[in-house]
Amino acid sequence: MTSLDSSPTSVDRVNADRLWSRLMTMAEVAATPNGGNNRQALSDDDAAGRALFLKWTTDAGCSHEMDEIGNLFVRRPGRDPAKPAVLIGSHLDTQPTGGRFDGIYGVLGGLEVIERLNDLNVVTEAPIDLVVWANEEGSRFPYSMMGSAVWAGKLPPAQALALTDVHGVAVGDELNRLGWAGTRPARPMPTAAAFELHIEQGPILESEGLQIGVVTGVQGFRWFTIELGGFPAHAGPTPMLGRRDPARAIARIVERVYAMVESYAPWGRGTFAQFGSEPVSPNTIPERLWCTLDLRHPELESLEQMDHAVRDIVAAEADALGVTSSIAVDNDSPPVAFDAGCIAAVEAATADLGFSRQRIVSGAGHDSCYVALRVPTSMIFVPCAGGLSHNEAESITKEQAEHGASVLLGAVRRMAAG
Amino acid sequence: MTSLDSSPTSVDRVNADRLWSRLMTMAEVAATPNGGNNRQALSDDDAAGRALFLKWTTDAGCSHEMDEIGNLFVRRPGRDPAKPAVLIGSHLDTQPTGGRFDGIYGVLGGLEVIERLNDLNVVTEAPIDLVVWANEEGSRFPYSMMGSAVWAGKLPPAQALALTDVHGVAVGDELNRLGWAGTRPARPMPTAAAFELHIEQGPILESEGLQIGVVTGVQGFRWFTIELGGFPAHAGPTPMLGRRDPARAIARIVERVYAMVESYAPWGRGTFAQFGSEPVSPNTIPERLWCTLDLRHPELESLEQMDHAVRDIVAAEADALGVTSSIAVDNDSPPVAFDAGCIAAVEAATADLGFSRQRIVSGAGHDSCYVALRVPTSMIFVPCAGGLSHNEAESITKEQAEHGASVLLGAVRRMAAG
Repeated sequence: MTSLDSSPTSVDRVNADRLWSRLMTMAEVAATPNGGNNRQALSDDDAAGRALFLKWTTDAGCSHEMDEIGNLFVRRPGRDPAKPAVLIGSHLDTQPTGGRFDGIYGVLGGLEVIERLNDLNVVTEAPIDLVVWANEEGSRFPYSMMGSAVWAGKLPPAQALALTDVHGVAVGDELNRLGWAGTRPARPMPTAAAFELHIEQGPILESEGLQIGVVTGVQGFRWFTIELGGFPAHAGPTPMLGRRDPARAIARIVERVYAMVESYAPWGRGTFAQFGSEPVSPNTIPERLWCTLDLRHPELESLEQMDHAVRDIVAAEADALGVTSSIAVDNDSPPVAFDAGCIAAVEAATADLGFSRQRIVSGAGHDSCYVALRVPTSMIFVPCAGGLSHNEAESITKEQAEHGASVLLGAVRRMAAG
Repeated sequence: MTSLDSSPTSVDRVNADRLWSRLMTMAEVAATPNGGNNRQALSDDDAAGRALFLKWTTDAGCSHEMDEIGNLFVRRPGRDPAKPAVLIGSHLDTQPTGGRFDGIYGVLGGLEVIERLNDLNVVTEAPIDLVVWANEEGSRFPYSMMGSAVWAGKLPPAQALALTDVHGVAVGDELNRLGWAGTRPARPMPTAAAFELHIEQGPILESEGLQIGVVTGVQGFRWFTIELGGFPAHAGPTPMLGRRDPARAIARIVERVYAMVESYAPWGRGTFAQFGSEPVSPNTIPERLWCTLDLRHPELESLEQMDHAVRDIVAAEADALGVTSSIAVDNDSPPVAFDAGCIAAVEAATADLGFSRQRIVSGAGHDSCYVALRVPTSMIFVPCAGGLSHNEAESITKEQAEHGASVLLGAVRRMAAG
């Protein structure tokens, strides 16, 4: 591993026009009518995005291979093949109505770092590995950061391969269909440091007027599916009193859970989504009603308390109405603290370039949460318009894109020695 | 039309074993694991039910034809072909997790009346028309009592034919596929009176220990689709304060609408169902959330007041959270008052047989709501276990089935003179 020194190793900046052109070209793949993208994990659209990316990396002189779970690794060699690599990258898959930057910016910012090193004829000591993690979003296959979770040993490959989408199609089926089931095992190769460049997906940097967020860690989150069971009866003759109605129960649960989450202000988060009910009939009290709940907090103890509070609320409100209830944990990502050395490298690279900065905790989960379990890791955030993300209107400027990628370039050169 | 007199015209009772056998045989068509039926309108299962029924009616010497919207009319001739008919029947389609009696009992009870008249070698003056209305339930194609609505002139045939299910399949497509698109126009033929035999679908008769409900009218109902539009943003970094979250809005709407409906006790009804949201992602605030609402009251003025109250609640709660809202009326069925002569015929037939009875208002909509717009009409209710309906556990006894069908026999003989 390369040690840090305090003198600037680079005040070089990336090529803003080339980076922006790459971002806008990628945004044309599976573009949505409202200016976003729908490249859901392991779809034909996701494959089209990767094919475009691989054309660029091949043109940049890089080799690549995929691992058994569909993570894509692109390598720019270093002078010393024995040196542990510096790992950069993010993901190219999007939410169903996703934006043009979440994940993509980290991948194409990483590509720009490689291309800029090529421009400058810099040979780093250590190789640079640019990764595209498979199924980061978890919206099609219900496990977010799937590829990095498998790589980090937190999710057995067989379990990931068996995940299915709403049509019953499995991850393994799609990997085979797309030719993404690589022979390389999904586990860390020797790696000295990892950096992920990303949009903030929150309002803090923009509201503070700052250029760079030096990310010290990530909020923990838990995903739940709440299911309520009622007694289906005819909407007309059945008196209101004595109904066992899951619609009434979920209404009370949602309101009480939000109030509980707000008692954990300013960092607590709770989000209900993916509502559904059966039977599909307007004049029958629902027999089943379900939704998801996403809970977040940067401290494990608070997250645990919120988890327990949710279980108490669901049980109490369901019982009061004679409704059955169950809660399943679909995903559990504990809070993450990043590596002090990597944080310092980002901070130093930002200082070298003269950009304004702040240390920040990420509200969103990232592949870096899993990477950090195995490799010293940090992240670099740039502000995004209105803090908006998971939305077709997600937006950053060309200048903001350049700032973050230039910091990444500096951090990589510090760690890869080049 | 035949006039009523006060002397018993018939104390004959139907064949309970045959009726029960027919009911149990029909219940084998598209049986569900929990003892109910899933014969949704215009499906292959619905067609299988009709085929079985037609075998029985043909064996009973009846002719039949279908009209343009798939209503099936079976005729037992009378002595005088010029006499207006007496119309009996109900429907054979079911809810997705429906019971064995809702609708079916009225059709097979009508068949039993015809078979019993055959047994007794009774020739009525007027013909008897036994009808199976198409798509009464409205759960697959979103318009309940569709076939009778078209027949009564309340729903244009073209509009009914264009109704689609969740897969985009249209009523017209299914009628053609099944060979149910008859050449007979969907409009009333000369008819003196109509009777529909049905389970109560409510708890009143059972709790009062009564054998027969003499139905004087039907509660009005309105079906709404409520749709809320939020601002989709990432569940993690987006602060709780200032979210435009339709999940929170619907929670408040459901709770307030139920409280409002309860202020119309004991007759007001409100039922939320068919919940859904987009995008299908657990970590994005929903962009769209929707559900249906079924409102009922036996008085039009109260139903109108409830309608206005719902609109006020939806607008207020959505506005307070910066969420957009829309309300569509999917179905509007005003309260119905049945014909005094037909009510009297049912009451007299019940008295002739010595059964206990009570006048009752139906909480559920029935094809008779539309039939009553064109032809003097009433209904006969029998108690069902727990008042339960639209449920696989829907249940009546063989004796209860016999009581209701014997009353129908008596009412038909009074009106058809036989």
